[in-house]
Amino acid sequence: MARTRPLKVAVLGCGVVGTEVVRRLHGAGAEWAGRVGAPVEIAGVAVRDLARPRDAGIDPALWTDDPLALVKRDDIDIVVELLGGVEPARSLVVTALEHGASVVSANKALLAEHGPSLHGTAAEQGVDLFYEAAVAAAVPLLRPLRESLGGDDVTRVTGIVNGTTNYILDRMTRTGSGFEPALREAVEQGFAEADPTADVSGADAAAKAVILTALAFRTRLDPADVYLEGITEVTATDVADARSRDRVVKLVAMLERAVGREEVLVRVHPAMVARTHPLAGVGGADNAVLVETAAAGPLLFRGAGAGGAPTAGAVLGDLVTAARRRLLGHRETVPPVVVPGHVRPMADLRTRYHLGIDVADPAEALAEVAVVLRTHGLRTDSVRRRRAESGRDRLVLETSVVREADLLAALASIATLPSVAAPPRLLRLIDPVDGLGDE
Amino acid sequence: MARTRPLKVAVLGCGVVGTEVVRRLHGAGAEWAGRVGAPVEIAGVAVRDLARPRDAGIDPALWTDDPLALVKRDDIDIVVELLGGVEPARSLVVTALEHGASVVSANKALLAEHGPSLHGTAAEQGVDLFYEAAVAAAVPLLRPLRESLGGDDVTRVTGIVNGTTNYILDRMTRTGSGFEPALREAVEQGFAEADPTADVSGADAAAKAVILTALAFRTRLDPADVYLEGITEVTATDVADARSRDRVVKLVAMLERAVGREEVLVRVHPAMVARTHPLAGVGGADNAVLVETAAAGPLLFRGAGAGGAPTAGAVLGDLVTAARRRLLGHRETVPPVVVPGHVRPMADLRTRYHLGIDVADPAEALAEVAVVLRTHGLRTDSVRRRRAESGRDRLVLETSVVREADLLAALASIATLPSVAAPPRLLRLIDPVDGLGDE
Repeated sequence: MARTRPLKVAVLGCGVVGTEVVRRLHGAGAEWAGRVGAPVEIAGVAVRDLARPRDAGIDPALWTDDPLALVKRDDIDIVVELLGGVEPARSLVVTALEHGASVVSANKALLAEHGPSLHGTAAEQGVDLFYEAAVAAAVPLLRPLRESLGGDDVTRVTGIVNGTTNYILDRMTRTGSGFEPALREAVEQGFAEADPTADVSGADAAAKAVILTALAFRTRLDPADVYLEGITEVTATDVADARSRDRVVKLVAMLERAVGREEVLVRVHPAMVARTHPLAGVGGADNAVLVETAAAGPLLFRGAGAGGAPTAGAVLGDLVTAARRRLLGHRETVPPVVVPGHVRPMADLRTRYHLGIDVADPAEALAEVAVVLRTHGLRTDSVRRRRAESGRDRLVLETSVVREADLLAALASIATLPSVAAPPRLLRLIDPVDGLGDE
Repeated sequence: MARTRPLKVAVLGCGVVGTEVVRRLHGAGAEWAGRVGAPVEIAGVAVRDLARPRDAGIDPALWTDDPLALVKRDDIDIVVELLGGVEPARSLVVTALEHGASVVSANKALLAEHGPSLHGTAAEQGVDLFYEAAVAAAVPLLRPLRESLGGDDVTRVTGIVNGTTNYILDRMTRTGSGFEPALREAVEQGFAEADPTADVSGADAAAKAVILTALAFRTRLDPADVYLEGITEVTATDVADARSRDRVVKLVAMLERAVGREEVLVRVHPAMVARTHPLAGVGGADNAVLVETAAAGPLLFRGAGAGGAPTAGAVLGDLVTAARRRLLGHRETVPPVVVPGHVRPMADLRTRYHLGIDVADPAEALAEVAVVLRTHGLRTDSVRRRRAESGRDRLVLETSVVREADLLAALASIATLPSVAAPPRLLRLIDPVDGLGDE
């Protein structure tokens, strides 16, 4: 390796993650030379407000409020984009790639909406675009999907990929509280932002599902292709229903494809997860992703889904890989073959369902509901009756594997039954995984 | 990419894994072209006994019993080594590398003993050497350690990396049986080989620990540097002791290094793992590895640790990566900086311990043991008395964090106490991990 000049890194954005990245990079030249093969140097850090006092220990001359000028510099090897949101991040990343820099990003919204075109620009320029931190922060997931599983066929991915909603649902499970108090606690504890809409609506998880679909199935989706249901409607009664069936309510992102088929079905919604499923025990703000494949079988990846240091760890891993490749002059990549996706409609989903039905007269309702289900050709695996927290009698049913459209049709009829007190609540079930030998 | 001639693959060894690799590669040229960027073709499969009938569906002319001639061929791009054992695998891999082929191996014994020199040969030749399948089979672990965590500092790795011993201990836990009946069942069920010595002695796990140490700590060890204790001495009483403390007995491989320190301590032994630790629930023949780092925090990787299809999946992932790199002409690597390790002696281990002591007179023994421990400056966190399966009274102690040498000295004294009926049993404890939010 003839080259000995340091690799120069520009950092865009210096919030919690950026500060951690700068801190870990700064003044550790010798150590980074050992990891990378050459020293790594911070060439500039772009921030919104230069006036704000910062204590990252770096030369004040490195701060700038002109990110565009920074990414246009000829001497920048790698741009680390930590701005979040689509613009100006997209324009800056495109400019950086066009100026020959490799890019490391933690920006899920950007990658979900513009991943394929950014990959195209990177491939044209012969530079790298990495974004391990964009999904499940610290958990090494994207590189394993792209490389380690490159010779296998992924059939299904089931993930808890949003720490905020997992924290809220975990609190609801532990305390029996409703959604609002648990959300307030999450905000107070710093696990939710002041405006938690992107998290609780499931939109954040949907963006991650789009990124995972591209890597797992080499299929391109728009975020709008993802079936989306957030957690704002999850009640203490749902959580209690789940407990009564040895389940927990989790917000899951789920990607499925039959081997050899082009169609994918990608969804984000609260689900009742069996206690013995490996995702059920994932508490707090952790993330975990179960990847099922034709050859390898089920694989579980689990770790911190957010936080400055964990996210910075993932960013720096990408940075080391990009730096090594740059040093070796590896500027070409096999562009990921990502084809536009054929999306299976949610109405075609076939799975098992939980139905929670508040009833005026349990015996009467049981008979009437059974008739409706039979009329629609649907079968239940179990029915239990319990006294809900509201004081009402409640039927808790678990169906066999049925088609969602058929079930929705039946539910419309059930809602009109005189013995039924309120529209039934539907939650999809996630049952234990074959082949993960849990105790 | 100008090149369109197929990449040619030689497979050495065609047992369970080899058959699966050949089956998945064969006749799927178009699909592999999509994964790799060019067709992939089997150029030859070396087996020991040509006379044995085989049904892998490939051209009979591809079979050979001369692996040396196969790896010397000029047209071979990638050699997949699935022979196991050190020789002739080592010579064949060296010859393959020297003839310019990249090598994918699943051979932990080979990599543990000769990894650094094989990496040296590969680097000189500008070819790749990958071996994801050598540790935890299907679980993507080595590539994440090498790349995704390349910007982080691993502080500890705790793994269940041997499926046979995990199966045996799992059976003992579930049935209450002793080691011998559980071993027999494992052999009958195909989870243990007829000669299970390498597994039950811990040697197989130790080889994997050496490979993990090189990747996690960039430190080179000999297998003899690993403290080694197998599971042959684990008794039904140990398992019952563990249950009485809400723990399970697992064979773990554990690698530790303080950040910034050169010294490593690497050990393989049965341990009493707290039920709430993420490794405790790993049943059957599964593998799971917990990686703790400075930035990312605890990360869990879990999946099938053995079996034809899972191992083949990992091999094919390496094959795809090696093929892509070959196609792009990426023949240089940053050689992993692996320095000879300074091994901390086991006597310096500081951890918590379980002591199980069969006693003649519980009250008397308790007093005497307490005196001995105090004399050695050791503290216990808890003592319980229980009636062992043998009918004897038994003291079950958990110590505070103490130094192993101090504890062993105390145990020598305890063994001579008149109130103590047999030499005390020592097992090291593994407590829950901070930062994995288990429910």
